[in-house]
Amino acid sequence: MARGRFISLEGGEGVGKSTQLTALAQALEGRGLKVVVTREPGGSPGAEAIRKLLLEGDEKRWNPRSEALLFAAARSDHIEKTIVPALERGEWVLSDRFLDSSLAYQGEAGGLGIDAVRDLHRFGSQDFLPDRTLVLRLEDDAEGAARARVRDGNPGDRIGSRPPTYHAAVDAGFRAIASKEPDRVKLIDAGGTAATVTARLLYALGDLLP
Amino acid sequence: MARGRFISLEGGEGVGKSTQLTALAQALEGRGLKVVVTREPGGSPGAEAIRKLLLEGDEKRWNPRSEALLFAAARSDHIEKTIVPALERGEWVLSDRFLDSSLAYQGEAGGLGIDAVRDLHRFGSQDFLPDRTLVLRLEDDAEGAARARVRDGNPGDRIGSRPPTYHAAVDAGFRAIASKEPDRVKLIDAGGTAATVTARLLYALGDLLP
Ligand SMILES: Nc1ncnc2c1ncn2[C@@H]1O[C@H](COP(=O)(O)OP(=O)(O)O)[C@@H](O)[C@H]1O
Ligand SMILES: Nc1ncnc2c1ncn2[C@@H]1O[C@H](COP(=O)(O)OP(=O)(O)O)[C@@H](O)[C@H]1O
Ligand SMILES: [Mg+2]
Ligand SMILES: [Mg+2]
Repeated sequence: MARGRFISLEGGEGVGKSTQLTALAQALEGRGLKVVVTREPGGSPGAEAIRKLLLEGDEKRWNPRSEALLFAAARSDHIEKTIVPALERGEWVLSDRFLDSSLAYQGEAGGLGIDAVRDLHRFGSQDFLPDRTLVLRLEDDAEGAARARVRDGNPGDRIGSRPPTYHAAVDAGFRAIASKEPDRVKLIDAGGTAATVTARLLYALGDLLP
Repeated sequence: MARGRFISLEGGEGVGKSTQLTALAQALEGRGLKVVVTREPGGSPGAEAIRKLLLEGDEKRWNPRSEALLFAAARSDHIEKTIVPALERGEWVLSDRFLDSSLAYQGEAGGLGIDAVRDLHRFGSQDFLPDRTLVLRLEDDAEGAARARVRDGNPGDRIGSRPPTYHAAVDAGFRAIASKEPDRVKLIDAGGTAATVTARLLYALGDLLP
């Protein structure tokens, strides 16, 4: 049996990752593929326990370096227990966020450095990478914040209240990764209707589809 | 005010670390020092939460690399929240295990490599080190297992059932670290009465005492 493919969806908060993950899973299942949908942080029992540590408590609970180590520990477990077994069963795995969120958020915007965070992934997971990473981007960053506000019904949320320079640094991180790894990482325009965006994602997966 | 000193106690299971930590704390307090006693994994609220993840569940819950990342995350929090603040208040900190347990257990005996585990500490904690590390050793390893059996009233425990080659590798790790960092790390004979061992430890701290 052919090994499955591993696809990660990335991008800022509210850009449409979860919406597109569902649409993409349906489109792939419509082509007869078996699809496993997962997410980070989390995706396996151990990694979900780490996710709870990462998301509960106040913002200052973890220093940035502890936080990056926890993400790397969770990812190693997620890959070993969920992702690789599914790929070996011939299934496709779609993950809502993966390594590149750590590189862009903790590495670039958080100031730890993309290379240092990538080194943790090399240690924890032998630098295991997706077959393709689709980074959803909105030219106007305020539109993502607006989409998240509609979803959450919550005008002044934690992410929305971070300075625009923070969101700009996350986006710069994703762009830097895409320009270094153009075969793996594709920047996708997330503007327009959900169906339009799904069509763009399927186009960017064209060479991988059976 | 003078900054306090940070001392770690290391060694295999049952060798007498916890016994000596209490005795040492009393001896130092008798000299008018303020002493904070702590332990690893743990020693701060965040690190204790990680300790729970590390110690609960079955032996195979975490792969060795996830485990090493979790130890490094916990240590970064422990240093930031507990150890450094106490040192800055002028107190002495005594820790029951610290970095060198990770180097000897995960690095040497677990096969990840001492240097790779040290790199995680460099990332997580800027390579923060104790002023002195005291490694308790029994020439006859069976004696440590016997002490632990007396303590636990449990003849066939998890550690005791590991092969002698594992314990030998841990000990080789501690000896390798001591020979690379002779000023920081002292090998201490843990044989004889508890009072005899305490006297040896105080002697090995002589140059640091006020
Ligand atoms: N193409 C789109 N146009 C307008 N709104 C969208 C679009 N895609 C998603 N949304 C809405 O925007 C909000 C955020 O989408 P979501 O998929 O939850 O983003 P993410 O998972 O990236 O945070 C949701 O309310 C969703 O219904
Ligand atoms: N010098 C000693 N001689 C004999 N027994 C000892 C000595 N030091 C400690 N013990 C006993 O050995 C057992 C293990 O000691 P403990 O301090 O718990 O070891 P560790 O913390 O290194 O696992 C305890 O029951 C303790 O009372
Ligand atoms: Mg989402
Ligand atoms: Mg003990």
